[in-house]
Amino acid sequence: MKPIHVGLLGIGTVGGGTYAVLQRNAEEITRRAGRPIQISIVADKDCERIRQITGGSCRMTDDAFAVVSDPEVDIIVELIGGYGIARELVLQAIANGKHVVTANKALLARHGNEIFAAAQEQGVMVAFEAAVAGGIPIIKALREGLTANRIEWIAGIINGTTNFILSGMRDKGLSFATVLQEAQRLGYAEADPTFDVEGVDAAHKLSIMSAIAFGNSMSFEQAHIEGISQLDPADIRYAEQLGYRIKLLGITKRTLEGVELRVHPTLIPAKRLIANVEGAMNAVLVKGDAVGATLYYGKGAGAEPTASAVIADLVDVTRMHTADPEHRVPHLAFQPDAMVDLAILPISEVVSSYYLRLRVEDRPGVLADVTRILADDGISIVAMIQREPGEGEEQTDIIMLTHKTVERNIDAAIAGIEALPAVKGRIIRLRLEELL
Amino acid sequence: MKPIHVGLLGIGTVGGGTYAVLQRNAEEITRRAGRPIQISIVADKDCERIRQITGGSCRMTDDAFAVVSDPEVDIIVELIGGYGIARELVLQAIANGKHVVTANKALLARHGNEIFAAAQEQGVMVAFEAAVAGGIPIIKALREGLTANRIEWIAGIINGTTNFILSGMRDKGLSFATVLQEAQRLGYAEADPTFDVEGVDAAHKLSIMSAIAFGNSMSFEQAHIEGISQLDPADIRYAEQLGYRIKLLGITKRTLEGVELRVHPTLIPAKRLIANVEGAMNAVLVKGDAVGATLYYGKGAGAEPTASAVIADLVDVTRMHTADPEHRVPHLAFQPDAMVDLAILPISEVVSSYYLRLRVEDRPGVLADVTRILADDGISIVAMIQREPGEGEEQTDIIMLTHKTVERNIDAAIAGIEALPAVKGRIIRLRLEELL
Repeated sequence: MKPIHVGLLGIGTVGGGTYAVLQRNAEEITRRAGRPIQISIVADKDCERIRQITGGSCRMTDDAFAVVSDPEVDIIVELIGGYGIARELVLQAIANGKHVVTANKALLARHGNEIFAAAQEQGVMVAFEAAVAGGIPIIKALREGLTANRIEWIAGIINGTTNFILSGMRDKGLSFATVLQEAQRLGYAEADPTFDVEGVDAAHKLSIMSAIAFGNSMSFEQAHIEGISQLDPADIRYAEQLGYRIKLLGITKRTLEGVELRVHPTLIPAKRLIANVEGAMNAVLVKGDAVGATLYYGKGAGAEPTASAVIADLVDVTRMHTADPEHRVPHLAFQPDAMVDLAILPISEVVSSYYLRLRVEDRPGVLADVTRILADDGISIVAMIQREPGEGEEQTDIIMLTHKTVERNIDAAIAGIEALPAVKGRIIRLRLEELL
Repeated sequence: MKPIHVGLLGIGTVGGGTYAVLQRNAEEITRRAGRPIQISIVADKDCERIRQITGGSCRMTDDAFAVVSDPEVDIIVELIGGYGIARELVLQAIANGKHVVTANKALLARHGNEIFAAAQEQGVMVAFEAAVAGGIPIIKALREGLTANRIEWIAGIINGTTNFILSGMRDKGLSFATVLQEAQRLGYAEADPTFDVEGVDAAHKLSIMSAIAFGNSMSFEQAHIEGISQLDPADIRYAEQLGYRIKLLGITKRTLEGVELRVHPTLIPAKRLIANVEGAMNAVLVKGDAVGATLYYGKGAGAEPTASAVIADLVDVTRMHTADPEHRVPHLAFQPDAMVDLAILPISEVVSSYYLRLRVEDRPGVLADVTRILADDGISIVAMIQREPGEGEEQTDIIMLTHKTVERNIDAAIAGIEALPAVKGRIIRLRLEELL
């Protein structure tokens, strides 16, 4: 059977993994796909790297644009990353009638609406399983596995770097900065970790899942994003005492008022399966109205786990590339003419439970003042602990968990409480989700 | 857009759920599928039940054979169960050129080879996501999400009844019989629970997953099956002391010697995510060479979770029913001409670690005799605990965990140890898997 021809753009970690797995499992993949999947040409600015990895078994170039115009190539695999040159290449490939497989979450989160419209227009597929949660087939689950459901919400640990750091902070009681250094030494964090630790990478992935879940256009720009760099190990300990773990979650939820789209450190009950996802692992919890909660867990990054997703897409595209477009799964799960424009809620309109930590003078009446302000803003308290002040200490910590309330009420209450003379410094506020 | 017409066979729990979800989420499902999915005719021996559920909104009959021959029907949903009349109906539907969606694991495990061959011959699809692990899209993950991988093994909690009972036995220290009664009272176990508690239902599902994972023909008849009815709460406690939980796992593994296909109570490390799957929930752990371990978790039974899988299949079939068969995903993941006939290993040839519990006279020298026999059979011990005998008690329990060994060695050692005069009664033997 005639092979399908793939042009690979970028042969770094994931590109090298994709090449290696396609070689190693060629026989098994062909038995599934019905025909061989062959990397015919590779573009990388480092031709020596191409030679080392491929052993000169395919054509090579340092000009990625030559690949997207190559008449022999059926499918482009874009593994360059970023949204500059990658965007141009993907759009050019589509214009040339090539199908595209990409792992580029930043590109899709920022330019997905443009890219999917172009692909629709040209009748080509843009597949992106590798863009979210590495080797976990979560895009397939959302697009195809849960089509019966009205999806209510998704909550995911979708950034391995931050989960590795949070696991380290909890296990060893160390600060963010210390564990970050260890993560960098072990290769779990990049030299400039900003995109990961500040939640931007998670927000890219979350935006893609949200669009698929709700048939909404890609809305990364409206996402609320908080990272973990400001997280204090003390809050991890207090949360633990209250039966919760802190994870950096990407949460998207459909409400009557609009769609929530937010990434932030979140308290979740320690007994939930997802609370026990440790180290660099990823997991996504999806709540559908018919199926209930389902969880998908695995490696969210790395050469071969990501290659696993890239190649799964290659098999899908190989199967469908001569099929009528109407037989294909729509890019964002819903038929293009059935997509909607749901508003993304500002964070002040989000409803959540809250964890509050206050530093207060250790004297009678303070708690009464604090709880009065909360009550005036309609906020009820579910649990409270007060740290026993040390010998001679005049201040102590109060930690409270609240019932659900809209965020603007908490903002108002926090402003009121911080104005009390007995309350010292800023109040620490974290969101809490029961994930039921 | 013209609806696709579905004929529903059986409107019990899952059939009723399927009808309800298709009605409730009609708009959203149509937006995904590109056209309405309409139940046009329902067959059930209880026409009053059809009338109650559908409100007379579609045609009804007590003759299922009339439905599979109905010229208006495009897709048959078979929810009758069993492998008598259901087999005839499915084969007749295929012969009539209808696509089939079924939740019937027993039918596929026993007659899958015949059914898929017939479907291939007729160019129709037989979809069966609902046959394994209810609403969890595990068939899709195995058939499509992990196509890059050489799958090494699968280990699944794929029977909710037994997992509910095991959770109850562990939580409350109660006997199998007591918790079974509670499960029956709550509707988690049937009046005749044999198929569930003896592992047959899990073996049906395991056989299906094994065929898809390895491109092997369906081999249910060669599966090794042990249930949980003989499990003693004492062993759950001892396992816990050693850091393990006992779960009824379906395990299939590809080895150089052949394919393992076995269902039995299994010790697994308590810290694994899958060890913390409680109650009636299901979870499947899949190890691929590229992706590593991925886990899929959710409700494995119930009206709407199972309906979620049935309808996902209906959407897939709706999308593909006019497509060329070559564009479709092969029934068992591999192209029909690329299926193989791998031998299923007899249990005596399976390699595993073991948990052994011996009742022995509490006197010096016994342990030396026992360990000598194990050593002679090439079995090394990883951990051991000996119960402190009570006041005046002359016997005690020894619990040992072994390194990996082939089962026939353990059989030989057990026979030798049971022949020792100081060893009383039968030795309890359970298998142990690290799941790494």
